[in-house]
Amino acid sequence: MDLTPSARSAELRGRLIEFMDRWVYPAEAAFDDQWRGTGAYPPVMEELKTRARSAGLWNLFHPHPDEGAGLTNLDYAPLAEIMGRSLIASEAFNCSAPDTGNMELLSMFGTPEQKDRWLRPLLDGTVRSAFAMTEPDVASSDATNIATRIVRAGDEYVVRGRKWWVTGAGHPACAFFIVMGKTDPGAGRHRQQSQIIVPVDAEGVRIVRPLPLLGYWDPETHCEVEFDDVRVPAANLIGAPGDGFAIGQARLGPGRIHHCMRSVGAAERALELMCRRALARETFGSPLATRANIGDWIAEARLEIDMLRLLALRAAWLMDTVGNQAAAVEISEIKIAAPSIAGRIIDRAMQVHGAAGMSDDYPLARHYAVQRALRFADGPDEVHKMALARGELRKYATVS
Amino acid sequence: MDLTPSARSAELRGRLIEFMDRWVYPAEAAFDDQWRGTGAYPPVMEELKTRARSAGLWNLFHPHPDEGAGLTNLDYAPLAEIMGRSLIASEAFNCSAPDTGNMELLSMFGTPEQKDRWLRPLLDGTVRSAFAMTEPDVASSDATNIATRIVRAGDEYVVRGRKWWVTGAGHPACAFFIVMGKTDPGAGRHRQQSQIIVPVDAEGVRIVRPLPLLGYWDPETHCEVEFDDVRVPAANLIGAPGDGFAIGQARLGPGRIHHCMRSVGAAERALELMCRRALARETFGSPLATRANIGDWIAEARLEIDMLRLLALRAAWLMDTVGNQAAAVEISEIKIAAPSIAGRIIDRAMQVHGAAGMSDDYPLARHYAVQRALRFADGPDEVHKMALARGELRKYATVS
Amino acid sequence: MDLTPSARSAELRGRLIEFMDRWVYPAEAAFDDQWRGTGAYPPVMEELKTRARSAGLWNLFHPHPDEGAGLTNLDYAPLAEIMGRSLIASEAFNCSAPDTGNMELLSMFGTPEQKDRWLRPLLDGTVRSAFAMTEPDVASSDATNIATRIVRAGDEYVVRGRKWWVTGAGHPACAFFIVMGKTDPGAGRHRQQSQIIVPVDAEGVRIVRPLPLLGYWDPETHCEVEFDDVRVPAANLIGAPGDGFAIGQARLGPGRIHHCMRSVGAAERALELMCRRALARETFGSPLATRANIGDWIAEARLEIDMLRLLALRAAWLMDTVGNQAAAVEISEIKIAAPSIAGRIIDRAMQVHGAAGMSDDYPLARHYAVQRALRFADGPDEVHKMALARGELRKYATVS
Amino acid sequence: MDLTPSARSAELRGRLIEFMDRWVYPAEAAFDDQWRGTGAYPPVMEELKTRARSAGLWNLFHPHPDEGAGLTNLDYAPLAEIMGRSLIASEAFNCSAPDTGNMELLSMFGTPEQKDRWLRPLLDGTVRSAFAMTEPDVASSDATNIATRIVRAGDEYVVRGRKWWVTGAGHPACAFFIVMGKTDPGAGRHRQQSQIIVPVDAEGVRIVRPLPLLGYWDPETHCEVEFDDVRVPAANLIGAPGDGFAIGQARLGPGRIHHCMRSVGAAERALELMCRRALARETFGSPLATRANIGDWIAEARLEIDMLRLLALRAAWLMDTVGNQAAAVEISEIKIAAPSIAGRIIDRAMQVHGAAGMSDDYPLARHYAVQRALRFADGPDEVHKMALARGELRKYATVS
Repeated sequence: MDLTPSARSAELRGRLIEFMDRWVYPAEAAFDDQWRGTGAYPPVMEELKTRARSAGLWNLFHPHPDEGAGLTNLDYAPLAEIMGRSLIASEAFNCSAPDTGNMELLSMFGTPEQKDRWLRPLLDGTVRSAFAMTEPDVASSDATNIATRIVRAGDEYVVRGRKWWVTGAGHPACAFFIVMGKTDPGAGRHRQQSQIIVPVDAEGVRIVRPLPLLGYWDPETHCEVEFDDVRVPAANLIGAPGDGFAIGQARLGPGRIHHCMRSVGAAERALELMCRRALARETFGSPLATRANIGDWIAEARLEIDMLRLLALRAAWLMDTVGNQAAAVEISEIKIAAPSIAGRIIDRAMQVHGAAGMSDDYPLARHYAVQRALRFADGPDEVHKMALARGELRKYATVS
Repeated sequence: MDLTPSARSAELRGRLIEFMDRWVYPAEAAFDDQWRGTGAYPPVMEELKTRARSAGLWNLFHPHPDEGAGLTNLDYAPLAEIMGRSLIASEAFNCSAPDTGNMELLSMFGTPEQKDRWLRPLLDGTVRSAFAMTEPDVASSDATNIATRIVRAGDEYVVRGRKWWVTGAGHPACAFFIVMGKTDPGAGRHRQQSQIIVPVDAEGVRIVRPLPLLGYWDPETHCEVEFDDVRVPAANLIGAPGDGFAIGQARLGPGRIHHCMRSVGAAERALELMCRRALARETFGSPLATRANIGDWIAEARLEIDMLRLLALRAAWLMDTVGNQAAAVEISEIKIAAPSIAGRIIDRAMQVHGAAGMSDDYPLARHYAVQRALRFADGPDEVHKMALARGELRKYATVS
Repeated sequence: MDLTPSARSAELRGRLIEFMDRWVYPAEAAFDDQWRGTGAYPPVMEELKTRARSAGLWNLFHPHPDEGAGLTNLDYAPLAEIMGRSLIASEAFNCSAPDTGNMELLSMFGTPEQKDRWLRPLLDGTVRSAFAMTEPDVASSDATNIATRIVRAGDEYVVRGRKWWVTGAGHPACAFFIVMGKTDPGAGRHRQQSQIIVPVDAEGVRIVRPLPLLGYWDPETHCEVEFDDVRVPAANLIGAPGDGFAIGQARLGPGRIHHCMRSVGAAERALELMCRRALARETFGSPLATRANIGDWIAEARLEIDMLRLLALRAAWLMDTVGNQAAAVEISEIKIAAPSIAGRIIDRAMQVHGAAGMSDDYPLARHYAVQRALRFADGPDEVHKMALARGELRKYATVS
Repeated sequence: MDLTPSARSAELRGRLIEFMDRWVYPAEAAFDDQWRGTGAYPPVMEELKTRARSAGLWNLFHPHPDEGAGLTNLDYAPLAEIMGRSLIASEAFNCSAPDTGNMELLSMFGTPEQKDRWLRPLLDGTVRSAFAMTEPDVASSDATNIATRIVRAGDEYVVRGRKWWVTGAGHPACAFFIVMGKTDPGAGRHRQQSQIIVPVDAEGVRIVRPLPLLGYWDPETHCEVEFDDVRVPAANLIGAPGDGFAIGQARLGPGRIHHCMRSVGAAERALELMCRRALARETFGSPLATRANIGDWIAEARLEIDMLRLLALRAAWLMDTVGNQAAAVEISEIKIAAPSIAGRIIDRAMQVHGAAGMSDDYPLARHYAVQRALRFADGPDEVHKMALARGELRKYATVS
């Protein structure tokens, strides 16, 4: 289990750090201002994307060398960590969810036509996309609950249902949704679902409303979306009818590990800010850094981040060596641990910053909101713990 | 130590609950929509205020019978709890910070002219006010750090400084600030400061920008405000020069207990929502309420809320019987405990609601943001803990 | 809800504190030495008992004025707290479990003969007793699991079963057991059990072995005991056949509140020791008391003890005013909170003492073991939480 | 950073597991009985040692192939983990503290005579040894506090001082102490100390008393020991005068990593017991394993153990590749994390076992006591956190 990334990964990491220092961190405030001032999408992001692409820091996430950097999960992990330090970084490098998942999925399961029509522009960063899975009326952590229907009608499929937390749906450049729904509710538990491409301008698609997360209306906004008998060509189905669940599983592994490594980066950024603030801020005649309670927070942050990173690297290494399926337990572990640990560290960093820490003068509050959301996104912690416990108990159960 | 509120308090509580059920909870969504849609202040709030006033549920916080309900802290506590359940309730009953503190302060220390000109409209709810204490460049938990100057110049005072987290400054009805600054930086540690009334339209007052808290731009928005050689009549000074610190202390006790009782109410609301959701939501064939981990959260919430309420009632009772000064330790205790416990309960309630819990479809996320902010507002937890520890250690120190 | 104990309680508390300072704390080391050195019961305890009795500090727990102090639960609570500070205090004042519960039970349900033969010597402190409820092979938190049988045979009952964690069974002065068993396994869930007096020297009683708790072999040792067809007179049955469960419930309320108040006392003692040590111990040039992390521990201890005491007093007040049954939820709350909070405080006090804190040079480690055991004694936390959650959910359930 | 142990390590691990299953676990109860029954050292341990030695599972810890297995830290780590599962295992394999540290130290710094006279019998397991560092009157986490003197007098050194928590001093086979004391109190901070061999039967050595840890009087008992002008040959000094601190540092790294890996093993054993109990124990009609709160405990245990093991392996790998000095931060991290995480898991396993979990029917309580002690042994957590925080802050400090 060699957890040291390759020389190529290390070299890319160095360039990424340099790029972040030079272009990304300084653009954070401008992005915020442009976003809030105009309501339109911040032009500074297009500049960043152009720079990143010409710097060769583009599609680093993509495991296929034809379509991206062709890195293993272990090699991409340290890069995702660096990107995770800033909430505007992933999009700048064309490595942001849900596009990454959609691109991987289309690379793996798309027809040549689907790749040409939908994948290409995503890889080029000229459009963005959305993923529509969660539904308002049911607990989506149990996939059999999904109520959206995808019904064959001649050369077309008719999509009917209501989704929410559709990440990316509010982005001005969003071109299409990948929608999860049931083609055959009577089939076996894991053969009922299919996934289909729905263009954002198809008739019957209605963005009901954007949804805030802990007050934040994110640039790549989560939305509630209604699909009211939307008709799309039958060729838009990804894979065969009934493949939806399996395709979804293929998506989850890498997506989760990306999120987790970004959480590590967010935690590192928070720790850096906590240290800098503790050194700079004086109360009652001495800097906060001399107080042993703040010292404990810093020490615990260092320790927990190090544990977390190792756990994530191990999961990445396992995905590379034994595959996502066999690494399911380890992916669940990191999925539980990352947002919880990162959230706690960011919370303490906010406390060291006082009121400023909860404002947008520092990226802490927004990072906090993201980590908090990740505690239920892609399945709440409790569902993953249930799976872990079941696996552990199985080792000792005589029967069952 | 009889912690049972009086019959009058119980009667008011009953009417308050009825009013909340009938008018306040149903108005929450409208308030949100109006606020976000228009940018102007929600008309539904004016309706609520009119109703509350005519129902006799007005200025309940005010300890003087001429100017309000004339209740003791112990009697007001259960009413503040009920109001704390909804984030739009306090203003509807003219009981919201920072107006409550400003009204008490003017009642206690204001001249007849100040009362007539500034207190009366506040009591009537026709204007609102702001309190300007915290400064961006220094840790305000140490009052000697304050850099804002209030300098006598003939019949006037000249106010110069920059404040932030000026609660209420962004409210369209805000009429004036009470500003804390130094009249005599050379005086003894607690005689340097004064408090002065600054009309919102005085020349030199500049609202620099509103400030979000965990993404929320609250209706009664916190702002950064610059006072650039603002000249106000000398008669605007509250009390004598140098009284500022003492006046501030008088304000803190009741203000903190109000916040804490509202935290109890917020936690009770979260617990109710958690229970309702756990009963209604099914996953894997049974309602969440049957899961023992959710059960533990509910039980711990019940237990912790009960402890918290007793601690708050004790502090209120002590303030009534021995005074705010003598109850300082107990006020610090509840100041630390309330937002921390309420925050944890709300966090778990959010988790039970999944993504919906972080949206504004439920009041949980916004309540969370408020409780989080209270962990450093009016002095961060760590400063209050320092005071508690010092007091405890003093019992055993032979010398010092 | 007046939580101030009566003048009589306050007066007794004053005398108790004086007695503790003068006689109990100084005897702790001697008790330990005598106990460990000889294996026999420490003579210093008999001295303490004699002094306590002549000081009128005897049977303070007993609610009936004929048989004890005749105090309410609220009035006894602060006395139990003081006794809880030292692990040798309760026995010195004839207020230690399981004798207190056995005495209350015999006072309430005993026949005149039973009172004369078994209660009188207990009240006089000339003998001790044991309570045999828990069984090794089943989870006793579910009372229907109990397997011990009590079968009528002519003028006698035959007791057959195996119990463990029989508190008091190893005490050299132990005269009898009260044993819980089933007289009618076919009856309704709560009418199957009876309680019966079994003399310690009855034929067929066998002390299988003493049982340690976290390494401690307590003076009033917990034992495993076998009842191998032990025949006792039918007159030894307490109440009527089938009353066992109801009698047990009557015992639980006061017993739990005593434990909880003692936990408060143990926590206060730990806090005192923590403060004294932090003041006295220097590392790297300054006393531990100046370190902000130790300060936080002290502050949190002060805060949590205060919350805990209020919760316990409220439960006591409710038991006095509405009865044990109606106060069941509040008793469960304090049952969960007390050992958990006290345990955490003691753990931190141990940490401040370093290795010494885990030795018997300080009472901390032994107190820790007791509090840890209380997290499952009289029903594990998890069962009490289940009850709390059920009660809370019931408020919102439409049906059920 | 390849964290996979070598094939040889894996092979030894397999044999170790087999040996544990066949001989060690079944001997645990006998060891306990013999120890408590007789007061003499359990003969079953000598049997285990004989078997282990002839099975080639002997001195596995020793990094030098002449004197032990010659394994790297990374290769020894998984073996220490397996041994950590049982508290009687380390001694059986001649891998228990403080002998391991003493053997390494004598291998590294001993003269040929010292090796022959003191190291050889230790390697053969015919004697045991003790390490005397901590003193009762000062905080030993600050090494300059040490008061024991080692004074040259002709051909001898005179040792004078009082030590406690002298691990191994109570073992019947203990042959000598290695004592830390000051040869030159006037020298530089880290050149004042020396270490010297003191035979257990030297005149002036007095075992004052054994010391319990959380109630446990361990077989290899910790003692308080007085050195009353003990004269030993000058040749007993290890290294040169003033080398004591440096020699001590060399000892700490491997010692800590051994402890930590044993903590991982203890946590794994607790998790196994928790699972088995949860499957076997029924309450209210279903096994505890079906309760989601127990499930969460199991899942969190799995997750935290996995993080912990990775952290320990990384530290071991660093010690092997960059050396103990350069790995100081990472060793501190694992030193803090291991007993804290293992302790929490064992505590929960105890809770699932009810009262039985705190008795000695299961190894949980004793494991708990050991892990609790490790939170201050070799420096309390707080001192290690101070070091971690200092290192982290240094990255951002402009000056200092």
